[in-house]
Amino acid sequence: MSSVVETKTPIAVNTAACIGGGVIGAGWVARLIENGLSVRVYDPMPDAAARMQPVLDNADRAYAKLTMAQRPKKGELVFCASIEAAVSSAQWIIESVPERLALKQSIYAEIEEHAAVDAIIVSSTSGIMPSDLQAQMQHPGRLIVAHPFNPVYLLPVVELVAGKLTDAGIIDTARTFYSSLGMKPIHVKREIEAFVADRLLEAIWRESLWLIKDGITTTEDLDDIVRFGFGLRYAQMGVFETYRIAGGEAGMRHFLEQFGPCLTWPWTKLMDVPEYNEELVELIAGQSDQQSGHRGIRELERIRDDNLVAIQQALKANNWGAGVILADYEKKLFDAGAAVANGGTGAESEIDYSQPIRTTERRIPPDWTDYNNHMNEARYLQCFGDATDAFMRMIGCDAEYMASGGSFFTAETHIRHLDEVRVNEPVYTLTQVLMGEGKKMQLFHGLHHGDGRLLATGEHMLIHVSLETRAACVPGAAVAQELARIVALQASLPLPEGVGRAVGQVRVQARVVEQTQNPTEDNS
Amino acid sequence: MSSVVETKTPIAVNTAACIGGGVIGAGWVARLIENGLSVRVYDPMPDAAARMQPVLDNADRAYAKLTMAQRPKKGELVFCASIEAAVSSAQWIIESVPERLALKQSIYAEIEEHAAVDAIIVSSTSGIMPSDLQAQMQHPGRLIVAHPFNPVYLLPVVELVAGKLTDAGIIDTARTFYSSLGMKPIHVKREIEAFVADRLLEAIWRESLWLIKDGITTTEDLDDIVRFGFGLRYAQMGVFETYRIAGGEAGMRHFLEQFGPCLTWPWTKLMDVPEYNEELVELIAGQSDQQSGHRGIRELERIRDDNLVAIQQALKANNWGAGVILADYEKKLFDAGAAVANGGTGAESEIDYSQPIRTTERRIPPDWTDYNNHMNEARYLQCFGDATDAFMRMIGCDAEYMASGGSFFTAETHIRHLDEVRVNEPVYTLTQVLMGEGKKMQLFHGLHHGDGRLLATGEHMLIHVSLETRAACVPGAAVAQELARIVALQASLPLPEGVGRAVGQVRVQARVVEQTQNPTEDNS
Repeated sequence: MSSVVETKTPIAVNTAACIGGGVIGAGWVARLIENGLSVRVYDPMPDAAARMQPVLDNADRAYAKLTMAQRPKKGELVFCASIEAAVSSAQWIIESVPERLALKQSIYAEIEEHAAVDAIIVSSTSGIMPSDLQAQMQHPGRLIVAHPFNPVYLLPVVELVAGKLTDAGIIDTARTFYSSLGMKPIHVKREIEAFVADRLLEAIWRESLWLIKDGITTTEDLDDIVRFGFGLRYAQMGVFETYRIAGGEAGMRHFLEQFGPCLTWPWTKLMDVPEYNEELVELIAGQSDQQSGHRGIRELERIRDDNLVAIQQALKANNWGAGVILADYEKKLFDAGAAVANGGTGAESEIDYSQPIRTTERRIPPDWTDYNNHMNEARYLQCFGDATDAFMRMIGCDAEYMASGGSFFTAETHIRHLDEVRVNEPVYTLTQVLMGEGKKMQLFHGLHHGDGRLLATGEHMLIHVSLETRAACVPGAAVAQELARIVALQASLPLPEGVGRAVGQVRVQARVVEQTQNPTEDNS
Repeated sequence: MSSVVETKTPIAVNTAACIGGGVIGAGWVARLIENGLSVRVYDPMPDAAARMQPVLDNADRAYAKLTMAQRPKKGELVFCASIEAAVSSAQWIIESVPERLALKQSIYAEIEEHAAVDAIIVSSTSGIMPSDLQAQMQHPGRLIVAHPFNPVYLLPVVELVAGKLTDAGIIDTARTFYSSLGMKPIHVKREIEAFVADRLLEAIWRESLWLIKDGITTTEDLDDIVRFGFGLRYAQMGVFETYRIAGGEAGMRHFLEQFGPCLTWPWTKLMDVPEYNEELVELIAGQSDQQSGHRGIRELERIRDDNLVAIQQALKANNWGAGVILADYEKKLFDAGAAVANGGTGAESEIDYSQPIRTTERRIPPDWTDYNNHMNEARYLQCFGDATDAFMRMIGCDAEYMASGGSFFTAETHIRHLDEVRVNEPVYTLTQVLMGEGKKMQLFHGLHHGDGRLLATGEHMLIHVSLETRAACVPGAAVAQELARIVALQASLPLPEGVGRAVGQVRVQARVVEQTQNPTEDNS
C-alpha cells in the first residue's frame, strides 16, 4: 500500500465533495458552504436537494446569529449526478451514507476510481472502525473517520480516528482543516467501535429506556432532569472536571475514594438490555409525542439552534470551552473582514475613504429586541460602538496596538432614533470622521437598514488614552498619521444632518426634516 | 402512624434548619439565605463554619451576577451546637449527612424529639429510598427526599421522591417551596435507589472509567468531547427531545426504528464493571491532575459558576429551559423590588419623588466589559434604558399598560462618560424628570458608582406611542396624571449639570467642572 500524504503541511481545500445528503451529510454541506468552500454533493435519492434545504436554511439562520463578524462569501453548492462528478475536483471527500460496511467500502472503491490520488477521504460513521473501512482501499493511508454531531453546522466537536493503515500526518492535516471551520477536533487515540461520545450516549440511552419502561419517570421529566441539572454542567465542564470539583481540595483522588466503591452497588440496570419491541416503541414514542408533539421538527430545530448559539455566545463572554472556539473563529473572520469592510473584494486599498465608510454589517440578533418587539435602545449604541471599533481598526488602533498600551475611550455620545428595526433585519453603518487631531477624534455614524433607510445617527467624541495611566495622551505616530489621512480625504464632505444637536433641540429643529422618517415623532 | 400534613396549602417557611454542612448542606444554606430565609445549621465538625464559608462566598458572588433584580435581604445564618437548637424553631428541616441509613435514621429520631410536629423533614440523599429513611419515624408522613445537584445554589433541578408512608400533599408543598427558591422541582414518580439523574450519571461514569482504563482516550479529551459536543445539547434539551429531532419529521418512532436494534450490538462495556483498585485511581487521578491541576478548586468553582450563570442568562434571552425558571424567579424579585426601589422598606408611598429617584441598582456583570476591561459604552445606555423602564413602571407604564397598547419610545439620547467602571462594581441610577407633557417625556439619569461617584449622565427625550399604529399619541389618563404629579414635585429641583449639551460643546464647557472626575478628559 502506498502512502499518499506523508507531510504535516495543511493542504489547501477549496472544493469538498459530500457523498450522502442525510441529516449528517447536509450538516457537513452547510458548515462547508457557510465557511466559503465549494461543495459538490452526490446523493442517489431523487429528492435529495429538497430534503437538504431545511438544514441549509437552518444553518443560514444560525450563522446570521452566531457571529457579528463578516463571513466569507457562501461557497457554491452543486448537486452531481454521479460520484465521479462529485469527487473528481475535490480535495476533501466526506462520506455520510448509511452505516453498512459493505456499502461504504463499495463507495470508497468508486471514489478512488475518480478522485485525485492525494484527495483525503473521510467517513462520518458513528460506529464502524476506520481499519475496517479502509481494508479494501487502493490508497487506504488517506482515510480517517471524522465523526460529527448533530447539528453539524453548530456543534464544535468532531472525533478524529485513524485506522491501522492511515498515514502519519493525516490526523494533523484534519485537525487544521476542521479547526478552520470553527470546530474542535479531538483525536481518539485508539480505535474502538462507536468511539467515545457514542459510548457515553449509548450508556445514557439504555438507562433512560429502563427508567421509562419501569415507570420510574416519563420522557418529559427525564429530559427536564437533564436540562435543568447536569446538562448545564456538561455544557462547560465534562465528566472528570466536574467531579474533580465535587472532590473538593483533595481533588479527583478524594472523589474516587468517596464514590469508587459505589461501582459495585446494585444501583443500575446497566447489566441488562431492555428488549426492543413494539411495546417499548409505543411507550417511548407516545410519551415523546405528549412532551414535544405540539411543536414541529422545524420549530424544535430552530429552538435548539438558537439555544446552541446563545450558549456558545455566553461561554465566549466567559472565555471558556466552546466559547473559546467561537472567539478564535470570530477573530479570524474579523481579521479577514477588516479588509473587506467596504464591501470590496478583500483588498484594503479599495476602500474609498473620501466617502462615509461602511464600517459594519449585521442582522439584528433575537436577543437584541425588547418588550416593544424592536431593537432595544442600548443596542443602537452597541452598533455605533462596533462601528467605532471597526474604524479604529482601520486606522491601526487594533488589538496589537491596544496591547502596546493605547486606545480611544468615548467621552460623549448623541443619538437620534429615527426609525425602528426588528429581529433578523439587515443593517449597516456608514462612518464619517468629523475631526481627528491631537488626543481627540469625533465620529458621526449613520445606522442604515439594509434597504438604505436611515434608522439612527450617533455622534461621538473620543479621547485617546494610555491604558496604563488611564490619562489622555496623543496616539502613536502611525495611528495619528492614518487618522489624519482619512480626515483630509473626508474634509470636503458636507456636515451630516443632525451634527451638534442637543436633546430638546429636536423639538424645534428636527421636526421639519424628520417628520416623514420618524414614526415616533410628535406631529402635534 | 398519624398524618401531620394533609393539606396542599403551602406552608409559610421563615426558618429552615440544615443538618450537615458539607458541600451539599452548605449549598442548601447558601440558596436559602440568598432567598431571605433564616437558617439554623448543625454540623458536628468543629470547623464546619470555616468549611462552609467558601460555598457561601461563591453563592454571594454568583447571585450578584445571576440577576439584576433587587434580591431580598440575605437571611440570618446561625450555627447551632445541637440538633435541638437547630430544629426547634424551623418549619423546613434539610438533612444532608453522609449516605448511611442507620446514621440518617438516628438523626431523624433526634429531630423528631425537638422539632414542631408539622415541620417538614427532607433528605438530600442521592441514593437511599425514602421508604427506608422513614421506616422508623414517629411521623413518617412528613418525610420526603429532595435531591439537589452541585452547586445547589445555582443548578435549578431538584428531584422530589415520596416514600410509601409520605402524606398526600407533601410533594405539592415541596414543589411550591422549591419553586419559590428559583428551582425546578421534578417529582420522580416511583422510588428506586439513586432516582433518575444519578442513574444516568452512573451509566456515564462507568463507561467513562472503561474508556480511560482501556486507553481509548484521556480524561481531558473525554471532557472535551462532552463539553464541545452533547453537553451543549443537554443544557437545553434532554435525551428524548434531542433524539426526536434526530428522527426528523417522523419523530421518535423513526429514531427508535433506526437505532433500536443497536441495543443488542456489542458496542459497550456496560455489562461489566471496572475493578476499583489503586491502579485505576492512579490512572484517573493522574490524568485529572494533568488536565486541571494548574487551577485550584476555588478557581474551578468560580469558572463553573460564571458559566452556569451565563448559560442560564443566555437561555433566558431565548425564553427556554433553565432560562424560563430564571425569568420567573426574576419577575417575582422585580415585582417585589419595585416597591423598595427607593431603598425603602417595601412601601411604595415612602419614595420621595421630590428628589432624583433611585431607579435601579446592580453590579456590573462580567460580560458587560470590553477589551478595555471596563464597562462597554453600549451598557451605559442599557443602564439608562433600564432606569427609564423603572421610571415608566413607577408612573404605571408597566407590562399590563403596554399590553393595552401604549408605551414610550426613546427619540433622542445624550450621554456624557465621566468615569470608568469595572466588573462586579456596584452602581445605581438617580432619575430626574425634566419634562412630561402631552406626548413627551424628558428624563435625566445619573449613573453613580456605589460609592457615590458620578460615572455618566444620560439625557433622553421620549415620545408616547401607540404600539398598534407606531404613531405618537398621548398616554392614558392614569399614566399622564402620575407623570404630571412627579413633574410638579420635582419642578423646584435645579437643572442638573450637563443638560442641553451637544457633542463638542464638552470641549469648551465641560472641562472646568469635569476635570477632576474624568480620566479621559483632555487636559491640554
